[in-house]
Amino acid sequence: MSLIRASRLLRLSTTPALRLSSSKACPPPSQDKPNFPCVDAHAARESKLIASRAPRFEVTDNADTGPEPAYARPNPTTYHTYHHPHPLPLTYSTTPLPAFDIAYETWGTLSPERDNVILIHTGLSASSHAASTPANPAPGWWEKFIGPGKAIDTNQFFVICTNVIGGCYGSTGPSSIEKATGKPWATRFPIISVFDMVNAQFHLLDHLKIHKLYASVGCSMGAMQSLAAGWLHPDRVGKIVSISGTARSSPSAVAMRFAQRAVLMADPNWNNGFYYDGLPPHTGMKLARQIATITYRSGPEWDLRFGRQLRTLPSDATTQSSSAASMDASYPSQSRSPALCPDFLIETYLDHQGESFCLKYDANSLIYISKAMDLFDMTLPALQALNIRRRVPHQSAELSPSQAQPHKTSHSKSHPPPVNPPAYLPSLAAGMAPLAKIPTLVLGVQSDILFTVEQQREVADALRMAGNDSVSYYELGGVWGHDTFLIDTLNVGGAIRGFLS
Amino acid sequence: MSLIRASRLLRLSTTPALRLSSSKACPPPSQDKPNFPCVDAHAARESKLIASRAPRFEVTDNADTGPEPAYARPNPTTYHTYHHPHPLPLTYSTTPLPAFDIAYETWGTLSPERDNVILIHTGLSASSHAASTPANPAPGWWEKFIGPGKAIDTNQFFVICTNVIGGCYGSTGPSSIEKATGKPWATRFPIISVFDMVNAQFHLLDHLKIHKLYASVGCSMGAMQSLAAGWLHPDRVGKIVSISGTARSSPSAVAMRFAQRAVLMADPNWNNGFYYDGLPPHTGMKLARQIATITYRSGPEWDLRFGRQLRTLPSDATTQSSSAASMDASYPSQSRSPALCPDFLIETYLDHQGESFCLKYDANSLIYISKAMDLFDMTLPALQALNIRRRVPHQSAELSPSQAQPHKTSHSKSHPPPVNPPAYLPSLAAGMAPLAKIPTLVLGVQSDILFTVEQQREVADALRMAGNDSVSYYELGGVWGHDTFLIDTLNVGGAIRGFLS
Repeated sequence: MSLIRASRLLRLSTTPALRLSSSKACPPPSQDKPNFPCVDAHAARESKLIASRAPRFEVTDNADTGPEPAYARPNPTTYHTYHHPHPLPLTYSTTPLPAFDIAYETWGTLSPERDNVILIHTGLSASSHAASTPANPAPGWWEKFIGPGKAIDTNQFFVICTNVIGGCYGSTGPSSIEKATGKPWATRFPIISVFDMVNAQFHLLDHLKIHKLYASVGCSMGAMQSLAAGWLHPDRVGKIVSISGTARSSPSAVAMRFAQRAVLMADPNWNNGFYYDGLPPHTGMKLARQIATITYRSGPEWDLRFGRQLRTLPSDATTQSSSAASMDASYPSQSRSPALCPDFLIETYLDHQGESFCLKYDANSLIYISKAMDLFDMTLPALQALNIRRRVPHQSAELSPSQAQPHKTSHSKSHPPPVNPPAYLPSLAAGMAPLAKIPTLVLGVQSDILFTVEQQREVADALRMAGNDSVSYYELGGVWGHDTFLIDTLNVGGAIRGFLS
Repeated sequence: MSLIRASRLLRLSTTPALRLSSSKACPPPSQDKPNFPCVDAHAARESKLIASRAPRFEVTDNADTGPEPAYARPNPTTYHTYHHPHPLPLTYSTTPLPAFDIAYETWGTLSPERDNVILIHTGLSASSHAASTPANPAPGWWEKFIGPGKAIDTNQFFVICTNVIGGCYGSTGPSSIEKATGKPWATRFPIISVFDMVNAQFHLLDHLKIHKLYASVGCSMGAMQSLAAGWLHPDRVGKIVSISGTARSSPSAVAMRFAQRAVLMADPNWNNGFYYDGLPPHTGMKLARQIATITYRSGPEWDLRFGRQLRTLPSDATTQSSSAASMDASYPSQSRSPALCPDFLIETYLDHQGESFCLKYDANSLIYISKAMDLFDMTLPALQALNIRRRVPHQSAELSPSQAQPHKTSHSKSHPPPVNPPAYLPSLAAGMAPLAKIPTLVLGVQSDILFTVEQQREVADALRMAGNDSVSYYELGGVWGHDTFLIDTLNVGGAIRGFLS
């Protein structure tokens, strides 16, 4: 129950006594005590946050709503917001979300027939800002892929990108104000699913009077949404692009996201999710991002990019460690001693990735959305267990696992029917049967350790087994791992362009 | 400098005010605030630790030495200790370790010729207790591999296993008392290398009057030590067994160990390493072990073992979440709603692994030894930069990188000379030239993501390139990943038995 509170009291009452007794009984000579800049950085960040918010804490009568944290101060003039005033049914909840906002941006021009729309689904932490706009000229997260003449050609298509519900960039999420209480939802926010995210997007499409998408396009979690869109609304999705995604989150991907949630939730600042009137769990976010970054790139890339190189040491760097650990000794390639703080370039890279992210994104959004990814599973029994009412004309097209058969012809000569398919493949094929008529591009990257190439093959195999004759499947080499979809305009961009044309 | 201290003051002075202001201004109704047992567990553990140590804190005059933490209370009656009263030169330090203890256990009988000795090197966190003994009948960490008639046959061999220096199971490490101060070294302990660990072991061998090892055997970090033993003392090592190790830590392995150190060092209890008179960083240790466990096993194993199964919920489990997150809804395979705390079996498995380890091992030992692993690099320039004086008769046998050539004959038909060797392979071959005359078994596992199979091939290739005609190389399939060496008695045990006979 209130162990956390008890602990906090303990921390306040008992721990200082320990420290006191400690500093009284055994004070290590300060000149002899090593410094750890990588650890001090957390405290420095905390002090800076406190200082930057000092005025707020003086205005106690304004504290009941509380200002939004720095990372969750979106500028609503740079994107559109659709407010859906009606309840949104949820997959894992009998109580719907009472209402929601969805932030979106658009590029290109909607055709008079409203038939040139591409909906772009984002990965975990991205905003609706997929590419620069007049209202927000900053480069978007997929800037290289969206624009006139680019892979997603805005001379031809009307492109929409939304911030997912559960996010913190303008769409309703845990940091949003719950109308009933006037306070941020925090962890009172309901668990959401990828299907819920997509349902919210289709309410936006309804609002925009767009009946059918030319294509539903997504990478990473966006690929899950892209598949979910086809499953929920097969008659409203013309083509599907699924890049570095999955139709069934694997236990190893769950493990890697679990590790991130665990470090985040262990940060005392997280406070069971109720930190919006205090300090955000910036240390936990930094640590979580460091772990995430390991899963986004690949060992082969780091071999090439960093190898075993050490960070460049400032000439006056005497603070790394003041004592034993910095004794002057020879050290591979450089005449200095190793340190316990980041020392190899790969370490400083991860440290930097964590530092630059830790105040950019809402911790609760990370927790809720990463959980939604874990829960994603398109095998038939998993889908049947969900609280989802699909309004699909062709329910009869769905197969039972026993009915699903390996499809006779393979769309791609480079990818024959699987030799050793996982036991659940028929069940996945049965679950994905509603997508049998939708041309689908499945693209994966061999160096991706988060959404492995086996999972890409699985998506393609399940679609083919479900009877989909129009599966385009590509496997990319290269060393960029999961992040390839952000980088490789030549190959990822080329495949998308070819598939959309 | 004292940012950490400043932060601690801030935490004590400012943060409570925030909480106060928070709880005054916006108190979420307690019946509406979700509970998180996985987070409460940290506080509960802390309370339990405080309670178990309460008497100590009352005895302030005894506080200058402080009792050892629970995980570092080795029982010296269950192992032997060799005290080396002379300084041990260190790789990265001009100041030697003034003296050291090394804990060890033995199995089997030393032959009159003292020529049947096998030295077993441990992985990161293991003790000298590799197998049960009369003094300590508990199963050892390699119980299935050591004993009469087993892969390492104690009817034939006299087997020694030590706790490495830097460790916390009886050998000198950061938790040991520094004689000059009468206090634990903590992070005043010097950075150590794998070579330092091996040097200490050879002082033990000198003490035991064992000139030459029949074999030096190690897995994981133990494999690094095994190779280092051959490099430091080629005339004293008869055979080398290197299982799931490396001769050059890769940036991706460094990344995964960095993530563990980072979460550990961010735990406020870590206190820059000076926690021995306070509470250990048990939360950081749990989080670090969770990350480590991900690298020790493999996705394919988890697919088979856990799949997407959910944990079994106690029938009366109403505490998982008291509000939104536990609303009654259908959920894959089970009629309950998902939770933000561990929910899938893979999550509860990782949680359990972390929980059961977090008070077993010293956090500073983990930091120092994992750093030693990162620093391990047998390429010639890296070795030349070290502060190591090898007393080797055949220094002339060493090759320059340009002299090293792919060896003409390959020992194993299954492993021809590499097609695309890494650029540093000649440099690694040159560095490993002192091992050219030592028969070596190199064994790796294809599902190992920490010490990848590419690194196993690298060790074998470098040895062959250095002119070693007696390299036995095995690559195992199977799903157990890095931990295979703890599990697979049939294949790992068989290869060892065959190689040693």
